[in-house]
Amino acid sequence: MVSAITPPASAVRSKRYELLTLGDELLLGLTANGHLTYVGAQLGRRGVLLQRNVTITDEAEAIVEQFRDSWARADVIITTGGLGPTCDDRTREAIAAVLGQKLVFDPEIVKAIEARFARLGRKMTDNNLKQAYRFERGEVLPNAHGTAPGLWVEQNGKVLIMLPGPPNELQPMFAEQVVPRLAQRGLLLDREAYVQIRSAGIGESALEVKLQPIFDRYGDALSIAFCAHQGQVDVRVSSPSAALSFAQLDSIAAECAASLGEDFLCFGADSMAKVAADLLRAQELTLAVAETATGGMLASAFTDICGASKFFAGGCVCYSNESKMQLLDVPECLLKQHGAVSAENAVAMAVGAAERLGADYGLAITGFAGPCGGSNENPVGTIYIALHSPHGVWSKKLHYPGPRATVNRRAINAALDWLRRELVRASRGAGMSPVTGSQSGG
Amino acid sequence: MVSAITPPASAVRSKRYELLTLGDELLLGLTANGHLTYVGAQLGRRGVLLQRNVTITDEAEAIVEQFRDSWARADVIITTGGLGPTCDDRTREAIAAVLGQKLVFDPEIVKAIEARFARLGRKMTDNNLKQAYRFERGEVLPNAHGTAPGLWVEQNGKVLIMLPGPPNELQPMFAEQVVPRLAQRGLLLDREAYVQIRSAGIGESALEVKLQPIFDRYGDALSIAFCAHQGQVDVRVSSPSAALSFAQLDSIAAECAASLGEDFLCFGADSMAKVAADLLRAQELTLAVAETATGGMLASAFTDICGASKFFAGGCVCYSNESKMQLLDVPECLLKQHGAVSAENAVAMAVGAAERLGADYGLAITGFAGPCGGSNENPVGTIYIALHSPHGVWSKKLHYPGPRATVNRRAINAALDWLRRELVRASRGAGMSPVTGSQSGG
Repeated sequence: MVSAITPPASAVRSKRYELLTLGDELLLGLTANGHLTYVGAQLGRRGVLLQRNVTITDEAEAIVEQFRDSWARADVIITTGGLGPTCDDRTREAIAAVLGQKLVFDPEIVKAIEARFARLGRKMTDNNLKQAYRFERGEVLPNAHGTAPGLWVEQNGKVLIMLPGPPNELQPMFAEQVVPRLAQRGLLLDREAYVQIRSAGIGESALEVKLQPIFDRYGDALSIAFCAHQGQVDVRVSSPSAALSFAQLDSIAAECAASLGEDFLCFGADSMAKVAADLLRAQELTLAVAETATGGMLASAFTDICGASKFFAGGCVCYSNESKMQLLDVPECLLKQHGAVSAENAVAMAVGAAERLGADYGLAITGFAGPCGGSNENPVGTIYIALHSPHGVWSKKLHYPGPRATVNRRAINAALDWLRRELVRASRGAGMSPVTGSQSGG
Repeated sequence: MVSAITPPASAVRSKRYELLTLGDELLLGLTANGHLTYVGAQLGRRGVLLQRNVTITDEAEAIVEQFRDSWARADVIITTGGLGPTCDDRTREAIAAVLGQKLVFDPEIVKAIEARFARLGRKMTDNNLKQAYRFERGEVLPNAHGTAPGLWVEQNGKVLIMLPGPPNELQPMFAEQVVPRLAQRGLLLDREAYVQIRSAGIGESALEVKLQPIFDRYGDALSIAFCAHQGQVDVRVSSPSAALSFAQLDSIAAECAASLGEDFLCFGADSMAKVAADLLRAQELTLAVAETATGGMLASAFTDICGASKFFAGGCVCYSNESKMQLLDVPECLLKQHGAVSAENAVAMAVGAAERLGADYGLAITGFAGPCGGSNENPVGTIYIALHSPHGVWSKKLHYPGPRATVNRRAINAALDWLRRELVRASRGAGMSPVTGSQSGG
């Protein structure tokens, strides 16, 4: 093991990382492949672009074939899953065959598994002993949150890291044991190899046209990647050849941000809610939310932020008219006259949330996200959002096509972006600006 | 094109499907690979187990290399991403080279893109024209929700389907255009090739031990796969050799379910919330929820269910003490004496939610999910859940290690499972059973 060093960027980038995620449940779409998201982000944050992620079935043959292929090509291979106690856990045996290594029974692992069952007050069944086999030449990564330990092998100048499938076991193991080991071997940097500029309210193609004059000045030295989310587009600038320094990439990104004006959201990957939250905190303002179809997702966009209690007063999920009246003081006559999916109700919800919870801002979403519901006047996909601020209250009518999840996601993004823009203007001392786009008075 | 047929199961299963997902943003963990989840589930539901999903970078070389490899091996290949207007969209060109096909400019595609921009009231920039190229020998799959159309190629007895990256464009295109085409060619079944049994409250290894006597009766004809989620374990039974019929698989699954008793959640992939919701609907009961750290995720577990207004009265996200008093009538003196993270407050929140919203059941979660917060008595990871029912109100104290998201997920699963078990007992006419496990009076 070499001592900790700060490797040159190009040395780290020339290393090829691959991730093998095992499990039929991933291929059947029964479980999302969160391992790619987690491991990819952990590596990306440390200057490594994972070169490939392959998800294959639990069959021993498929594992052998794929691992042989990846092991020949990659410098660092990470596998996830297939280390557990049951009959479909075959990764250890399959990979031992390719490595030409023996599996040995390790009584230390048995002790750890027994201790875990004892702590949980459960009886250890014999199939758990399967997890006590490790490679003859390799290390064991203890599992603080489950029974199957991870395995670490260095062989032929390559590194193999085998991790258990459950995310709550894999993630602490990766952060606490794998990252320090990789860093010690000079296989990680201390920052991203790219800068990401996040925008809102501008389409992907228009964004490229707007930023192209900046990019053109750097030619092939600069690599550009775009990614469009719903109502949000990310641009990543990097220099795979290392012809541009990180300082130069930072300065290019700053120039892009300046040219975007209010459409610039942030550098990096902060959510719209996080950006709005930072603006609220900086101005010592508080927010309350109220929602119907989005059912708690608007609130959780804020409560996902650590320390949310500093600015987030609370939220109401008002499915029934009764709950709108009880929790938010929406007048019954208003609901009878205009209905729950109306500008009037959105405004009453935003005001009600802010007033009941003593918050400076109130943000409300109501609508028909589908597939059921909808009316002639307000078909499925119709959303009303309302924003109550110290300067007044406004609403907007929006319409999004697509399935329920898409409609809800876009409605939330639209509401968050509206709040964010108002907070940007408020921070500059400007008052509430006239509402633009499709709108309705309240 | 052949007419619609019902193919034998073994014919469909012998076809090899692969999915190529393109994009650095997936490998950097900036975007979750939802395409695998979606496409995998769509195919799984129709008797197909995707054999492999490979995620690679946007580089033309990587695309050519991987596509050549997959095209040699698979019968049906689906690609996602890299069809857009910007400079990093290179899939079309890379794949044309491997297929030996020319790309031709299609004025019909231009018309569709222009119409889309006109509808949105935006100016079409010239880089959009890149999306108007299609394969010389192939079909165009129109994109109702974006600019880049999909592409369909049949060549050498294989099928290639290229889909745009944004999920709200890909998903309707897959459901409305790709699935019918595959079905017409006899490449899909009308049901899953497996039966999934979902359990709660029993560990993976104990579950295998419990079900093994059933499995043993079928030997190699039966294939078993386990997948542990937080507080929930799935078992899938299938017969890759088709030695067992679907009726036999259904009957094996029914036997497993019976042996699990109350630990049996459902067949298939319904969420715990969905199972609880079905029990509420069947008994014409309603539910209200109240939560702190889980910040809306408990509510959205129910509102994600279409028609939730039938049983879901609403929810409160009470971050501040003020909001607990205002929305749920939690007495100020109770909060002062016991604190917000206490059995007393959990009980008050559950009762408050049910009473304010006029619901039969009230479910509450409060706790320290971390990383900030916590006290000596209630360190980070401490959660109190409370359940108010027509029979009374109870609370439980729980503790989960791990990061915020894990603690929240497990807290929600524990609360949902408690509600579910009580509803199962209520449906049998049994009263509320004594609370088991770690608990605290209220």
